[in-house]
Amino acid sequence: MTREMHPQRWGDPRLAGPLSEATQALVDAAFGAVPTPAVDRVVLPGPGLAEELLASLAGAVGTAHVHTDEGTRRSRTRGKSTPDLLRARAGDLSDAPDAVVRPGSHDEVVAVLAWAREHHVAVVPFGGGTSVTGGLVATREGYAGVVSLDLARLDGLLAVDPVSMTATLQPGMRGPEAEAALAEHGLTLGHFPQSFEHASIGGFAATRSSGQNSAGFGRFDQMVVGLRAATPVGEIVAGAAPASAAGPDLRQLLLGSEGAFGVITEVTVRVRARPAEQVHEAWRFESFAAGREAVRHLAQHQLLPTIVRLSDETETALNLASQSDVGGEGVSGCLMVVGHEGDAVERRRAEVAEALAAAGGSPLGEKRGRHWREGRFAAPYLRDSMLDAGVLVETLETATFWSGVDRLRDAVTEALQDGLGEGTLVLCHVSHVYETGCSLYFTVAARQGEDPLGRWLAAKAAASDAVLAAGGTITHHHAVGTDHRPWLAREVGPVGVTVLRAVKAALDPTGVLNPGVMVP
Amino acid sequence: MTREMHPQRWGDPRLAGPLSEATQALVDAAFGAVPTPAVDRVVLPGPGLAEELLASLAGAVGTAHVHTDEGTRRSRTRGKSTPDLLRARAGDLSDAPDAVVRPGSHDEVVAVLAWAREHHVAVVPFGGGTSVTGGLVATREGYAGVVSLDLARLDGLLAVDPVSMTATLQPGMRGPEAEAALAEHGLTLGHFPQSFEHASIGGFAATRSSGQNSAGFGRFDQMVVGLRAATPVGEIVAGAAPASAAGPDLRQLLLGSEGAFGVITEVTVRVRARPAEQVHEAWRFESFAAGREAVRHLAQHQLLPTIVRLSDETETALNLASQSDVGGEGVSGCLMVVGHEGDAVERRRAEVAEALAAAGGSPLGEKRGRHWREGRFAAPYLRDSMLDAGVLVETLETATFWSGVDRLRDAVTEALQDGLGEGTLVLCHVSHVYETGCSLYFTVAARQGEDPLGRWLAAKAAASDAVLAAGGTITHHHAVGTDHRPWLAREVGPVGVTVLRAVKAALDPTGVLNPGVMVP
Repeated sequence: MTREMHPQRWGDPRLAGPLSEATQALVDAAFGAVPTPAVDRVVLPGPGLAEELLASLAGAVGTAHVHTDEGTRRSRTRGKSTPDLLRARAGDLSDAPDAVVRPGSHDEVVAVLAWAREHHVAVVPFGGGTSVTGGLVATREGYAGVVSLDLARLDGLLAVDPVSMTATLQPGMRGPEAEAALAEHGLTLGHFPQSFEHASIGGFAATRSSGQNSAGFGRFDQMVVGLRAATPVGEIVAGAAPASAAGPDLRQLLLGSEGAFGVITEVTVRVRARPAEQVHEAWRFESFAAGREAVRHLAQHQLLPTIVRLSDETETALNLASQSDVGGEGVSGCLMVVGHEGDAVERRRAEVAEALAAAGGSPLGEKRGRHWREGRFAAPYLRDSMLDAGVLVETLETATFWSGVDRLRDAVTEALQDGLGEGTLVLCHVSHVYETGCSLYFTVAARQGEDPLGRWLAAKAAASDAVLAAGGTITHHHAVGTDHRPWLAREVGPVGVTVLRAVKAALDPTGVLNPGVMVP
Repeated sequence: MTREMHPQRWGDPRLAGPLSEATQALVDAAFGAVPTPAVDRVVLPGPGLAEELLASLAGAVGTAHVHTDEGTRRSRTRGKSTPDLLRARAGDLSDAPDAVVRPGSHDEVVAVLAWAREHHVAVVPFGGGTSVTGGLVATREGYAGVVSLDLARLDGLLAVDPVSMTATLQPGMRGPEAEAALAEHGLTLGHFPQSFEHASIGGFAATRSSGQNSAGFGRFDQMVVGLRAATPVGEIVAGAAPASAAGPDLRQLLLGSEGAFGVITEVTVRVRARPAEQVHEAWRFESFAAGREAVRHLAQHQLLPTIVRLSDETETALNLASQSDVGGEGVSGCLMVVGHEGDAVERRRAEVAEALAAAGGSPLGEKRGRHWREGRFAAPYLRDSMLDAGVLVETLETATFWSGVDRLRDAVTEALQDGLGEGTLVLCHVSHVYETGCSLYFTVAARQGEDPLGRWLAAKAAASDAVLAAGGTITHHHAVGTDHRPWLAREVGPVGVTVLRAVKAALDPTGVLNPGVMVP
């Protein structure tokens, strides 16, 4: 399958070329980094499932859809966080599943879950493999084995309702496949996270993904109007209407359930007409504070464009807003990218421009806006190149209410700089905006040093503590996985944990679904 | 307390005067109705809680806040559905609580729940008493008694964050109190359901209320950014950020929990600046189908005004859109009320007017729009007058996706007309609109006949069956209560029921919270 990602890198490795001269010079100056290529030889544990178990699994989905070869297992090992990559680059793929199973229908998913329950095998639902929070690493201890439940064969557009403007998609569709299928009907989902090229519809739902167009299209959890999931105790279908007062919203329990409550097998989403026009432009603000106030004004006056993204001074200076290279021609102050897509773009653009100018912004034209758009999926490749060059690079994100944004940003920045030492660069941008608050997305670059993994894990823990202490959420759109689980427990408190465990126990009584993920 | 409602009627009984001559003539012609006044003598069971239990309850909240007098118990008996009123009008208040307790703080709510758990007393959280789905009638069997946990003393505005545009309110604040307190800060919540004058903040949250301004302000569940609740196993606080990917959204489990999972003691809501301008106007469409398509166009092109409400031909002909009287000067075709509130009203009005005209609408000017607005909380009084006059009147509501609206409307109309017999009037309007669908609100008027309660319950059951068969939700904004519980079970399916029961068991292990309500 061409859509496989390299087990040690993001996407197509050819797209992560060597750093430009300017970037390399900056890296040399800032970090004195020593190139650190990945090792060629990776070590997988032998497949641990007994032949008779594999045979019965094959009975459920067909022999052709149970894979135990090293290549397939390698490509279904862990996700794409920097810790995942550091381990893989060092040759450690010890979390490889024993087998990869690819059911071809909802009923086959049900059959795989029944098999897993019967034999007490841990099941890791796999969509695009883009998790950056350890969402694909299940507890092995106490289980007969671990299988990756790869949803790749569930990749169809099941239904389009052009009157209601909804579409029902299977979970294994990747972002571009879903957009292509909808485009045939003149429709778009409008969900473009950085992981878009590889991530899947089921993953978007299971992790509460949020895309770059969230200001105009909403978060993925706001797009979902219906869900079907297979659980070890039966099927659940949620969403009889766009909105309802029929008790708690069970859609909102499956959204964010990260494969721990069930396997999402169908997602019905709100779709829109493909945008007739689009324009992306850049604005400059004197400071992050000025830009933040401008964005808050837009959000609180129902003036949000389709895309709004504000880089802080450091991110702006490094020109990382382009997401494709650093060290190019920078802008002083803070760069804001504003995008309008859809109908009446010129009218909306004029309204927003008036508000931004009134808030102290200066228009920089369309070129930088287009540049951002062209490079908007490229950041993970730059990370690979940086890791090759010996720089430790990772991202983390959170969200809070407007009145706490500065405090949260300062607290996280300080925790990361303290944790990673002198010369550490912490960049920040706002890219998801609500009336009452916004997300903060941090990019960190530091020396790799002796033990980059250990240093990062310690710094991330300190940053996570700082997030909670400053009143933020442990994750705005990267999800919980295994990495954020201790902080989720603190965020929701003991009674919240009781609820999550109760739902888990009810839907997955023997705990075979993604054990160790999400549920504290 | 002046805000008490009469146990047999809505609100202030003086506001439900005799029908106008025109209405009386219409009632006579349509139903040959015989005036049916409520009986004066209502029968309450004796308070059933032992003195020592009441004494220990008084220890938790103070003697002054435990009430066992008949007047207080009467006013906390059941809600305001037509079945509730028919029973009360016939003198039956057999569901009266044994006592009414008014805790003065979150901690006192906790103490009441601990007391209830220790003595196995059923607790019915009470906000405004406006439930129309039996949300205030707990199971008595198997319990030492039933107390109404009246939140009236928790009626403060706890905090305002003018930067984040949020406010934290206590649950016992009634709609007008909340708006008045926010108005001192120049703010509004913008939540105006028909029950606004009496319903409470806690009730809005617990039932997923939706108000007349929902097109512009959203449903109440969309306004809530944070919740605090007391449960028998401890406190739960949900909502660290406007949006999050930190697992399932636990706010969405408490929203719609109807007092069965916990007692909501604080609600943090998104607020907005009080509208600088407002305009309400009426439009005419040739048919319900034409008006529905116009509304759909607005919703699917991000053109929704603050208020949009489309009456069908029958509702329009009876001029019931005004909510205050029938039989006045009608409009042929279908009446639409459109309201714009906030900034830039004229610009938005012009955009919407252009779209409505293009969709075949004719503007009828502001007079009818104002008329609707002035009478918008009056319908429950008209119901009282109609019940006095011997007409059986009730409402029910649902929602579905646009492509199913006609089928759902036809199915419910037919079920009600079949169930209630010749001459039955079924009126319908659309008043909550989404990109993917809308609500349908039905008003029914029929002969009371020999057994109005029995006839209504049978017709409602048939209509509820029809709702599910046609793919709608059993309730869009009236909630589940006891009345919709069997249909909720069918709507969410056996695994959905398993989840609801698991959460209930985890938070309320001995089942003292609103037993019999919501959870199937």
